Amino acid sequence: MTYITLDDVEDLALGAVVLGTGGGGDPYIAKLMLSEAISRHGPVEVVDAADLDPDGLLLPVAMVGAPTVIVEKFPNGGEAAKGLRALEGHLGRTGVAVLPIENGGMNSLFPLVVAAELGLPCVDADSMRRAFPQIELTLFTLAGLPSSPMTLADVKGNYVLFESVDNAMGEKLVRACVAQMGMVAVMSAYSITAEQCVRHGANGSLTYCLEIGRRIRAVQEGQAGAYEEFLRFCEAEILFTGKVADIERRTTGGWARGTVTLQHLESEDRVMRVEIQNENLVAFDDGEAKVTVPDLITLIDVETGVPLTTEALAYGQRLHLIAMPALDRWRTPEGIALAGPRAFGYDIDYVPLGGAK
Amino acid sequence: MTYITLDDVEDLALGAVVLGTGGGGDPYIAKLMLSEAISRHGPVEVVDAADLDPDGLLLPVAMVGAPTVIVEKFPNGGEAAKGLRALEGHLGRTGVAVLPIENGGMNSLFPLVVAAELGLPCVDADSMRRAFPQIELTLFTLAGLPSSPMTLADVKGNYVLFESVDNAMGEKLVRACVAQMGMVAVMSAYSITAEQCVRHGANGSLTYCLEIGRRIRAVQEGQAGAYEEFLRFCEAEILFTGKVADIERRTTGGWARGTVTLQHLESEDRVMRVEIQNENLVAFDDGEAKVTVPDLITLIDVETGVPLTTEALAYGQRLHLIAMPALDRWRTPEGIALAGPRAFGYDIDYVPLGGAK
Repeated sequence: MTYITLDDVEDLALGAVVLGTGGGGDPYIAKLMLSEAISRHGPVEVVDAADLDPDGLLLPVAMVGAPTVIVEKFPNGGEAAKGLRALEGHLGRTGVAVLPIENGGMNSLFPLVVAAELGLPCVDADSMRRAFPQIELTLFTLAGLPSSPMTLADVKGNYVLFESVDNAMGEKLVRACVAQMGMVAVMSAYSITAEQCVRHGANGSLTYCLEIGRRIRAVQEGQAGAYEEFLRFCEAEILFTGKVADIERRTTGGWARGTVTLQHLESEDRVMRVEIQNENLVAFDDGEAKVTVPDLITLIDVETGVPLTTEALAYGQRLHLIAMPALDRWRTPEGIALAGPRAFGYDIDYVPLGGAK
Repeated sequence: MTYITLDDVEDLALGAVVLGTGGGGDPYIAKLMLSEAISRHGPVEVVDAADLDPDGLLLPVAMVGAPTVIVEKFPNGGEAAKGLRALEGHLGRTGVAVLPIENGGMNSLFPLVVAAELGLPCVDADSMRRAFPQIELTLFTLAGLPSSPMTLADVKGNYVLFESVDNAMGEKLVRACVAQMGMVAVMSAYSITAEQCVRHGANGSLTYCLEIGRRIRAVQEGQAGAYEEFLRFCEAEILFTGKVADIERRTTGGWARGTVTLQHLESEDRVMRVEIQNENLVAFDDGEAKVTVPDLITLIDVETGVPLTTEALAYGQRLHLIAMPALDRWRTPEGIALAGPRAFGYDIDYVPLGGAK
């Protein structure tokens, strides 16, 4: 059995920023919440879905809203517990474990807080193995599983249950309610069985996130060969190393959009432009798309080894642009149709990373 | 026992426009739906809440959204039935009768369609005895009853259940989801018992609406003394008779706002200005507020006797401005705090109609 202890929290948060690909929210608050929860309830058990009763009901959970708001008025495990208990009532079943919906940013850590609160284990899996800005962008949607019933619970005690006809409509309804809830709420969706998780989840993703974090820490500590080991582990590559020459931010259509321009440290004529819609979605090398969603683009400070969320980007920072292939299921025609560049409005084809499996 | 038959549909719709005070939507579509439902299922039984088992659960229902949209893609009794059955499942109880939430516009007729569909009687009551544009503006809110659990069901099969901490928040959540549902859905809220309806509802309001309609029809048929009888029955008065000299319409903040200016037929210097937010809310006689919400303002064509929704207003129409006192409970300090002119953003005090009980 694996447990997440106080010693793991920092590493998990580091890995969460890498998998957050700029989005998913700074896990700082979630880190505090998880440390507090572990101090109170003890280490959180992490289980493989395959080790659970195949028919056991999983309780998937994620924080939704605007990361900038969540930092100011964050929910606690109590709201999540309330929403999940109501969901159990609706389904007439009791959950055997908590399942992270997203693995990236604060949502890599928050489900562990909920698990601690409920006294349940947390499944070592999620539905994306990265952060995505919409609830329907999951491996479960790819597998034809419905996101409904979905629930939302907020800090004030409001609770909403959704049965939508498809996962895209579910996203719209949830998003509309979250806006009324002050841009922060706890969501549940995709209440699947352990067997369905074994078949369709991104299994092992929580410990994968932790292992990434450990390797990033080794980089930060300046251990010999640490960068190579981090890149090898993630099948990643440093695609570009440059200085932030320009950041343009705009909020349109509920998205935190932006463009970051990196100027190459050695040859100043070379520029890499990263397009952001909550997450880093496409990297253009002198106008040519080099990395495209669903593959991952993470920016890491050259000097400190700190992976950065888009909010933390600032002029003059010297950054490595790390490109990581997404899970193979995302790189299929169906995966690209759901979460490729065109799904986000870019008129370009998916460009598979060379380092793909 | 009272039944609503095919012969009643036209009169009920006439009364519904009067109680709609310009809003609530043209009941034309609801009239077609109700005629069809009666043809299929037979006359709809109308019962007093006092004649039901006091502990019997009522199923309150209303159509919500934009009247202009509802005319184009109207829901049927089936969606309502689905939402109410899901509500029953959530409450673990079965309803004994359908209860109109609003009495005005299409929502005077639609609950009868639902009752026919479910094979249940419809209670002779509602929670407003007029139309109001927000779900929390009810006598039930005044009595401290929660609007939750609320449900929404749309034509596509989406279903949402809300448990909000207060009725104002319930309104916000429902409104946000209705917008995602294409501005039309069937709502349930305030699932009370028959005894609670006896104590807090606007009892008798459905037959009251029908009786108003019968009197309006007598006016339209030119029966002797018909106008006097209509005014006497409603405790109403003709406050002004004028020609539509100007109509200004604007849609802001989700409201259909507007200002109608009437020029007096005999003394052209006199003007009456009616301010609209979905419903006719305040009438200013040469700048002085003469009728204020929650009292009712209804505009009736002088020649034809046709009561008009705000959408039907047009330049040059010659209209009677009819002022009717709201139910006494609306005219209390609490009622005025909830639904008086200041609640709608007008910086004026409530002006009680002289004809008040």
